[in-house]
Amino acid sequence: MAIDLAAIEAAAVALKGHHVQTPLLENPQLNMTVGGRVLIKPECLQRTGSFKFRGAFTKIHRLSAVQRANGVVAYSSGNHAQGVAAAAQHFGIPATIVMPEDAPAIKIANTKALGAKVVTYDRWRESREQIGADIATREGAVLVKPYDDEDVIVGQGTVGLETCQQTQAQGLGVDQLYCPCGGGGLMAGIATAYQSLSPDTRLYCVEPEGFEDTQRSLALGRRVSNSEAARSLCDAIVTPTPGELTFAINSRALSGGLSVTDTQVRQAMAFALERLKLVVEPGGCVALAALLAGQVHAEGQTTLLVLSGGNVDLSLLASL
Amino acid sequence: MAIDLAAIEAAAVALKGHHVQTPLLENPQLNMTVGGRVLIKPECLQRTGSFKFRGAFTKIHRLSAVQRANGVVAYSSGNHAQGVAAAAQHFGIPATIVMPEDAPAIKIANTKALGAKVVTYDRWRESREQIGADIATREGAVLVKPYDDEDVIVGQGTVGLETCQQTQAQGLGVDQLYCPCGGGGLMAGIATAYQSLSPDTRLYCVEPEGFEDTQRSLALGRRVSNSEAARSLCDAIVTPTPGELTFAINSRALSGGLSVTDTQVRQAMAFALERLKLVVEPGGCVALAALLAGQVHAEGQTTLLVLSGGNVDLSLLASL
Repeated sequence: MAIDLAAIEAAAVALKGHHVQTPLLENPQLNMTVGGRVLIKPECLQRTGSFKFRGAFTKIHRLSAVQRANGVVAYSSGNHAQGVAAAAQHFGIPATIVMPEDAPAIKIANTKALGAKVVTYDRWRESREQIGADIATREGAVLVKPYDDEDVIVGQGTVGLETCQQTQAQGLGVDQLYCPCGGGGLMAGIATAYQSLSPDTRLYCVEPEGFEDTQRSLALGRRVSNSEAARSLCDAIVTPTPGELTFAINSRALSGGLSVTDTQVRQAMAFALERLKLVVEPGGCVALAALLAGQVHAEGQTTLLVLSGGNVDLSLLASL
Repeated sequence: MAIDLAAIEAAAVALKGHHVQTPLLENPQLNMTVGGRVLIKPECLQRTGSFKFRGAFTKIHRLSAVQRANGVVAYSSGNHAQGVAAAAQHFGIPATIVMPEDAPAIKIANTKALGAKVVTYDRWRESREQIGADIATREGAVLVKPYDDEDVIVGQGTVGLETCQQTQAQGLGVDQLYCPCGGGGLMAGIATAYQSLSPDTRLYCVEPEGFEDTQRSLALGRRVSNSEAARSLCDAIVTPTPGELTFAINSRALSGGLSVTDTQVRQAMAFALERLKLVVEPGGCVALAALLAGQVHAEGQTTLLVLSGGNVDLSLLASL
């Protein structure tokens, strides 16, 4: 299936009534602070607490009955896990999720609560791709990749379609859009929608320091990897290298990338809590962190920030 | 001015572009848990972090230039303070706010940051009404009452108008609505809108244990007061007795009232953080607390909960 606007529109029709049409929020004080308009798409309010439900639902929705029969398997740091588990539960099929053993407790618990079987692995020593592939082979289950999959990218693209519809309804044009980026599925989906619906909007990915593989790959024109020694608070988006499909899209569509430190992420999480009244997880907060850290020229601009998820242990919130 | 739908509609027109049209949220897991549809109106996402901006803006908007000249004065536990300060700042007039000395630090700091002069008093030993009246007399400022004022009630009523428009756009009818209640201004404003637009919706106020003056007043058919010994975590809604104007409306419109304990409120705040990804303050959380505590028959119903504010010190969040 093609990754294009028509596919995203079809995915949005299928999702309707099953996902949360997240609002487009504005905070007048934030607008005043930056001297421009800042539009916030809070996917932390999405079903399962992140945008991932959209892609997982779209993937499973497009499987045939025969393909669905043996269930699905997925590897994930947590948000994709919950998205796949909830989507599988919706369609009444079994799900096995391969999760890093150091994933936030809330993500593991929530995945189990959604009826999925959870298999843990060592994030730094084992290959989740291999474990997932082995289970798929052994059980005949369909592997739902976290980002490098056409259906998944199309599903995440509904975030872009929705925001375009929401800004259009308000008569607003968006000058620039900043989106968290791990493997790049959400970014690529949004970029696909914007290239058709709002081609003049400048698109930027935001990554954690040490995991700015997409930013560097964009600059070099080819996919590069992060150091294996890199560590980050942003568990949801610490991927080793851009996806093949996602980078093919992002390398054409993006104007560039930014990266933020853990300290900037913590400050953004605290700002979200105190000012926006939203719980945003570290990886979900990087675009806001870049804005608050002064990396975004927002004065006189209409800037859209995607807050991609909110699944964070309360203990981390307490530490802010 | 009359407190009716036409006045609320006019207030909504004036507010447009200056306030946040807060979304109507749904959480599929919460729906599954209660076996019904739960619609959430998160006024914690409102400008200044609570619905109070609506009433304060409406009040000042309706003053003449002569009336505005000497500014406004208000007494408030914090949310009304911020609402009045932000509205006064918007209209470019001075504001003096009388606040209890034990109000959450974030509310005092935010009020000052909005350009208001803050005067503190002892919540348990001094009369804020008297202090506010003295300042009004001395300075020639207009007193903006927190709830017992026609313009303020009309402004808060825009919450009701908006939710009616939002549910109508989704083709949804609301069986029952639960709203936090202190002096009753938000409840009375919402009730005014619903009596015109959705008269079959059952309306209930929710109060903190020890401060269920409206609940008891409804049962007795006359305004009664709370014990002076009562204490509650819900600083935003610990008023001594229902307002005259508000009770006149609420006594006709409401089907009853509920009350919740501090423990139930804490559980609801934690649920809001972990599941809804929203920061809700204690007083803003009472309707959700009543639902989660099993006091609301929500099975097979469409239930609307108002979350009225989110101004809470991070230290209290950390204690959850």
